[in-house]
Amino acid sequence: MKPRVALLSTLLCSLLFIFSASSTSLAANATTSGQPSATVAADPLPSWNDGPAKQAILDFVKTTTDKSNPKFVAPEDRIATFDQDGTTWVEQPIYSQVLFSFDRVAELAPQHPEWKTTMPFKAIVTGDKAAMAKFTTKDIEVIAMATHTGMTADAFQTIVKDWWATAKHPRFDKPYSQMVYQPMIEVMKYLRDNGYKTYIVTGGGQDFVRTYAQQVYGIPPEQIIGSALDTQYTYNKEGQGILMRNPKLLLNNNGAGKAEDIYLFIGKHPKAAFGNTEGDREMLEYTQASGGASLEMLVLHDDATREYAYGPAHGLPDTKVGTFSQALYDEAKAKGWTVISMKNDWKQIFAWEK
Amino acid sequence: MKPRVALLSTLLCSLLFIFSASSTSLAANATTSGQPSATVAADPLPSWNDGPAKQAILDFVKTTTDKSNPKFVAPEDRIATFDQDGTTWVEQPIYSQVLFSFDRVAELAPQHPEWKTTMPFKAIVTGDKAAMAKFTTKDIEVIAMATHTGMTADAFQTIVKDWWATAKHPRFDKPYSQMVYQPMIEVMKYLRDNGYKTYIVTGGGQDFVRTYAQQVYGIPPEQIIGSALDTQYTYNKEGQGILMRNPKLLLNNNGAGKAEDIYLFIGKHPKAAFGNTEGDREMLEYTQASGGASLEMLVLHDDATREYAYGPAHGLPDTKVGTFSQALYDEAKAKGWTVISMKNDWKQIFAWEK
Repeated sequence: MKPRVALLSTLLCSLLFIFSASSTSLAANATTSGQPSATVAADPLPSWNDGPAKQAILDFVKTTTDKSNPKFVAPEDRIATFDQDGTTWVEQPIYSQVLFSFDRVAELAPQHPEWKTTMPFKAIVTGDKAAMAKFTTKDIEVIAMATHTGMTADAFQTIVKDWWATAKHPRFDKPYSQMVYQPMIEVMKYLRDNGYKTYIVTGGGQDFVRTYAQQVYGIPPEQIIGSALDTQYTYNKEGQGILMRNPKLLLNNNGAGKAEDIYLFIGKHPKAAFGNTEGDREMLEYTQASGGASLEMLVLHDDATREYAYGPAHGLPDTKVGTFSQALYDEAKAKGWTVISMKNDWKQIFAWEK
Repeated sequence: MKPRVALLSTLLCSLLFIFSASSTSLAANATTSGQPSATVAADPLPSWNDGPAKQAILDFVKTTTDKSNPKFVAPEDRIATFDQDGTTWVEQPIYSQVLFSFDRVAELAPQHPEWKTTMPFKAIVTGDKAAMAKFTTKDIEVIAMATHTGMTADAFQTIVKDWWATAKHPRFDKPYSQMVYQPMIEVMKYLRDNGYKTYIVTGGGQDFVRTYAQQVYGIPPEQIIGSALDTQYTYNKEGQGILMRNPKLLLNNNGAGKAEDIYLFIGKHPKAAFGNTEGDREMLEYTQASGGASLEMLVLHDDATREYAYGPAHGLPDTKVGTFSQALYDEAKAKGWTVISMKNDWKQIFAWEK
């Protein structure tokens, strides 16, 4: 769509390299499942290998939808929450929304000549890979505010949709809509088919995810809970009511924020929650605190061949993007949460795989 | 349930008197409708008199659900928002949540001996009607914080449910669940039957309304948008994740806040919105700004006999609770919003009326 996207592709190669260089030397830990799997005529989870992870999902749904079971869950309480980046789609080498921000800086640069000499913009505009590699969280924040605010809410949606239409993943060269994990799409559908309301609960921008979630996940905007900027209601020249996006974070939907915002938006504990990082801990704890039957799952990225491998849990390479610490892994084991091994539990990761 | 409720009933009589004393001398403005009404076998709005208000609702639904109509609205965009106090149920002589706060002060007073000498609590504890009548917004806020915070989110729900089980309206002596307007219940059902998702968008407390909204309106907690306190995720003695309610307002869901929060929670413009005060103006404007067909309605309380009469719009008595100004009335007329005359448009107000 835009010539600058090519420039960005080059820049992103450096990030790709930085974040994934160590992911090829992976100590894969094959797990064996002694549990017999229920092979039925129509398997609701065909992309899953038989094993404890798949069985945990099947058991949870069977238990909570069986009226004769003491752990039956009333339909109105069937809430399932999914983290997005690294849980329902690829987050490496860097979050898609960060790529969007960088693309926007390149796009907007002609209107901001000062960016040529002002960091962190300068790094992007001049293609300084070494400087980009050193971006701090604060740098990313500054870039996010410059690219996500100052326009109406409606205008922002259009900007994201335009980007989304042509953006591709730097390694797989596929549109982001194809970077979603097929096993998770199956779980979402299976849960919905059994009366569960599915939500995305993401550290990413709520407005960003809402632009494509219906298409990608079959989840409507009102079931996307994410980090959110403050908006201000005002009037345009025609006197029509509009919402302006302010450079102020209203909801930081990560870690404890996920539990707090689930309560803010839904008003009750989830019964099932899926995540993959430190930022999902509290969401899973809050889910388990619902009492009765609940399902807590964490995706462990241990497949550098088909996707990526990072932890540092389980001896996997460390990463700044989607950290899954050994402490989280230990908590999962202690609390009966299920760790999904991407390598062993997922027969197929992407729908386009042969 | 609690002996103190009787005490509060006495106190509330004063407020009742203060706020409704002037509502008996009402200049009712009868409107006549030249429009023929479609009397069909099964009228979806039997509590409505034929007239422009009823017709506006029927026309809106017909237009937006007819695929051959250029103003057809896709099912996923069928969003209808309802203010609560004064729009879907009685708000006079004072908001039910304020009554709840006063009851809680009486209930908690033994644990707070200092309240006997500290305003505004002293006024409630000692039954000082004159002082209560002078409560400022700040006083009400102080009382709200003292009675709504410092407990877990789950515990607060239980407190409200207990209150709700026995609380009655001071004038009508009915449980609050019966103080709902039957015509609005019919509109909600009619809209839902035609694919609309119904939301309550209230200046009242989101958590408060969520405890009874399913029972009263058939609306689940996740479709209640209201003013909300900040919560903080932490752990109880057993190490379980809990949410504590903090004395800090996160969302002030009134006026511009209604448009902002609708966007935060739903991510799109409503197609229909119902209100009755200044605090609903921006919600209606934002609804109309959706483009295409939309429905904006305001309830005018002009029936002192069956309910209450207040404005000051249209020459009705002024009020501090649910102000409907002449300016709002004029804006409604100028923008094609429909003003519902409670006296003329509603055949029946409450389900229990003969």
